[in-house]
Amino acid sequence: MTDTNRRQVFQSTAGVLLAGLGITDSIPARSAEVFSSSQKISSVEPVTKILAQFAAKANADQVPASVKKEATRTLLNWVGCAVGGSRQDATNRAVKALQEFSGPAKANLLGRSEKFDILNAALINGISSHVLDYDDTHLKKIIHPAGPVASALLALSQHRPTTGREFMNALVIGCEIECRLGNAVYPDHYAKGWHITGTTGVFGAATAAGRLLGLDETNMVHAIGIAASQPVGLKVQFGSDTKSFHPGKAAQNGLLAALLAEKGFTASTVALEGFDGWGQAVSTKQDWTEVTSDLGQRYELGLNTYKPFACGIVAHPSIDAAIELHNQHHVNPDQIEAIEVKVHPLVLNLMGKTEPRTGLESKFSIYHAIAISLITGRGGEQAFTDSAAQNAQVINLRKKIKVVVDPAIKADQADMRIVQKNGDVLHQFIEHAVGSQNHPMSDAQLEDKFNGLTEGILKPEQSHQLINLCWRVWELENPSLIATNAAV
Amino acid sequence: MTDTNRRQVFQSTAGVLLAGLGITDSIPARSAEVFSSSQKISSVEPVTKILAQFAAKANADQVPASVKKEATRTLLNWVGCAVGGSRQDATNRAVKALQEFSGPAKANLLGRSEKFDILNAALINGISSHVLDYDDTHLKKIIHPAGPVASALLALSQHRPTTGREFMNALVIGCEIECRLGNAVYPDHYAKGWHITGTTGVFGAATAAGRLLGLDETNMVHAIGIAASQPVGLKVQFGSDTKSFHPGKAAQNGLLAALLAEKGFTASTVALEGFDGWGQAVSTKQDWTEVTSDLGQRYELGLNTYKPFACGIVAHPSIDAAIELHNQHHVNPDQIEAIEVKVHPLVLNLMGKTEPRTGLESKFSIYHAIAISLITGRGGEQAFTDSAAQNAQVINLRKKIKVVVDPAIKADQADMRIVQKNGDVLHQFIEHAVGSQNHPMSDAQLEDKFNGLTEGILKPEQSHQLINLCWRVWELENPSLIATNAAV
Repeated sequence: MTDTNRRQVFQSTAGVLLAGLGITDSIPARSAEVFSSSQKISSVEPVTKILAQFAAKANADQVPASVKKEATRTLLNWVGCAVGGSRQDATNRAVKALQEFSGPAKANLLGRSEKFDILNAALINGISSHVLDYDDTHLKKIIHPAGPVASALLALSQHRPTTGREFMNALVIGCEIECRLGNAVYPDHYAKGWHITGTTGVFGAATAAGRLLGLDETNMVHAIGIAASQPVGLKVQFGSDTKSFHPGKAAQNGLLAALLAEKGFTASTVALEGFDGWGQAVSTKQDWTEVTSDLGQRYELGLNTYKPFACGIVAHPSIDAAIELHNQHHVNPDQIEAIEVKVHPLVLNLMGKTEPRTGLESKFSIYHAIAISLITGRGGEQAFTDSAAQNAQVINLRKKIKVVVDPAIKADQADMRIVQKNGDVLHQFIEHAVGSQNHPMSDAQLEDKFNGLTEGILKPEQSHQLINLCWRVWELENPSLIATNAAV
Repeated sequence: MTDTNRRQVFQSTAGVLLAGLGITDSIPARSAEVFSSSQKISSVEPVTKILAQFAAKANADQVPASVKKEATRTLLNWVGCAVGGSRQDATNRAVKALQEFSGPAKANLLGRSEKFDILNAALINGISSHVLDYDDTHLKKIIHPAGPVASALLALSQHRPTTGREFMNALVIGCEIECRLGNAVYPDHYAKGWHITGTTGVFGAATAAGRLLGLDETNMVHAIGIAASQPVGLKVQFGSDTKSFHPGKAAQNGLLAALLAEKGFTASTVALEGFDGWGQAVSTKQDWTEVTSDLGQRYELGLNTYKPFACGIVAHPSIDAAIELHNQHHVNPDQIEAIEVKVHPLVLNLMGKTEPRTGLESKFSIYHAIAISLITGRGGEQAFTDSAAQNAQVINLRKKIKVVVDPAIKADQADMRIVQKNGDVLHQFIEHAVGSQNHPMSDAQLEDKFNGLTEGILKPEQSHQLINLCWRVWELENPSLIATNAAV
């Protein structure tokens, strides 16, 4: 009895059943057609098996050095974000809800003192790493790749010893698979309402964890299949705790899929591409060549980017300009007569708030963003707190800022002029904002972001040590040291 | 900052970002339209809030006696199925995968000796209750309502003491909500590939568990919202362990949603009906009046049905006829010359296997189904084992059976004639097969099914006691006794 036979039996049975009950009129023509079309997919590539083979066999030796480096940067950025988000409401609430149900306390919660079982730790670290909306972004379809994958992997590494090399190879595999599946179903999938980080993240977590568990190709097929039945996330949740829940739950679901598959739990062998499978359910577009073409040759992870500043991305070019001027001229805010900045037309639509009163409101004020970054030279999480928004010097400076919409300015550009009381004029044009694909954050900038995120949570020397562990992760004998060193 | 504002910011930000990177061409016209259409839903009923209010406030006094009785039968049937499935491969594998990660061992696994934390127990009991494909069915859209709801509730009742009345009221609420949400999105949702038991079951589990936790309306909104981000299940999995995983994971996800909401974890307040919400993501059809009309007056749960026999439903009328003839005439198989049965045309398509060699194959043989039920008078799980399929008397009898397709026979009908060697002819026409909506299983038949399922797992007196506990569940001071009494 094959899966297809069983499916046909079931589907026809359903039809018969309904017919016998006199309610066939509730089955539309379209669905009748679907019920009998299971042969239609026979020409599709065996995507599930191809990915399983890649996940089970891809060797770290084949990963180009530049991709290895980007994977390291991705991990560093994720650790910083997870520590940085560890005291937020969503994280606290999840810890409170789950602490009485946790199993053996094997895995650390980053930035915190508790240890949880690995499945619940994966969930909570995933929440923590996304709650500040500050994690990595694969721009093609706005996936945040690290959250689901690293959250599952790091927790698992505290249960099953592994090397840094195997750990990072698994991270590359997981991120690659989730990004490619995202490419295959984007944009219809995204437009329908799905939060793609959670819906594809579960595959990243399942395959990465499956690799660390040493699943063979057959069990990896099942891990992918079990993952397919557990997509997580809707965009309607943006603005609530459930947004950050998505990468966390994707991590937990994927890890569960791998653990079940390891014990022989079975799933469909065509869960992605098959009739009544994942692709069909979540999108009208399924471009499987996005998944299979040049797999293991071309790496989507190499295109990963990082948000340098903790606010809406449209303000980033202006912040970039302000920090440049701060660094070059050590401008004294009291000596500033006026600031004029030419920006892309959408900036005022999205960040036009002139008098933000709270940290959250300040994230939607271009005036605040420029003032605080010109004064402090920083645009991280500390730049968007309640006290920053209420700081007298900041309030005073933001009143001097004139924002001019200029259709000639591109989205990653800004043109800033500061007129000083002594008549001097300072000028900074940003061609490509830092963090964009044309101007990636430097390692030093990533470190600075990391330190900003961990400030007040880890001691500076602990943060420094953790950064070093991350940079050396491919060579570590025991990558779970990252988890223990990120705890307090 | 409202959710809508944030959403607009995010969506526009994404657009700008992509524009800045020169990849706007990947955003199709349709998605641009969707991005700006968040106002379009303003006229939709606040379905999420309406359901939350119902879940938080509906009183057991308002539940009609007939619905209370059906809820009790639903529970009884579910307990039997969960015990009956407790030794199957899928259940064993899940137990093996999760035992080292379980938290405090508070909740029993039905039919087994292990205790797990309540979240993992909900998962495993849900798997166990569905693995035989023998659980209840809400025929309108083929949901199996009990699995997700009862699995979550019973585990939770072992952690938070409750009365039988509150427990069953919560079960009614959960089943009602999952069935109504199923009606709202069926049939497109089902035709897309979703396994509706898991995708709507998570709401049943979340609201039932939320009610038992005493969530107020606000937190119930969040529980429903968190559930919305975690649909489970694809039809492509039919024929694998992951099919039974669906109600189990729905139970676990829903219970998690309720536990998080209890600690203040937030979700969208329009997660079902909102722009980028559940309804939009999972179906092109969202008929919210199916959810809201006569809520608390008309109960979908009252329409629940139970499978009397452990094989494809198209064979049920023939088995029904054979058992009637067995009971009335105590037919001696050796005295049978020939059997002719007129059946609905699809029976031979689906169950035409003439020489089944295994228990699984025998589930797809109308010949075996008739022979075994005529000889034993039973059509439960024991009728479809390897040894039943290989029994010499059964093999001999099935050769005498002629199956005639007759277009005049409806799907829930069968017309059977037995010619005996002495020339006598026995005749039985089944107008509506037992288990169909026009001929529900009697309480005695449900008890018989239950005993068949628990045979070899529970001692007869334990099974008897458990049946009695289920019948008295509305009056029990402590319904978790059902869990402890179903363990071995």
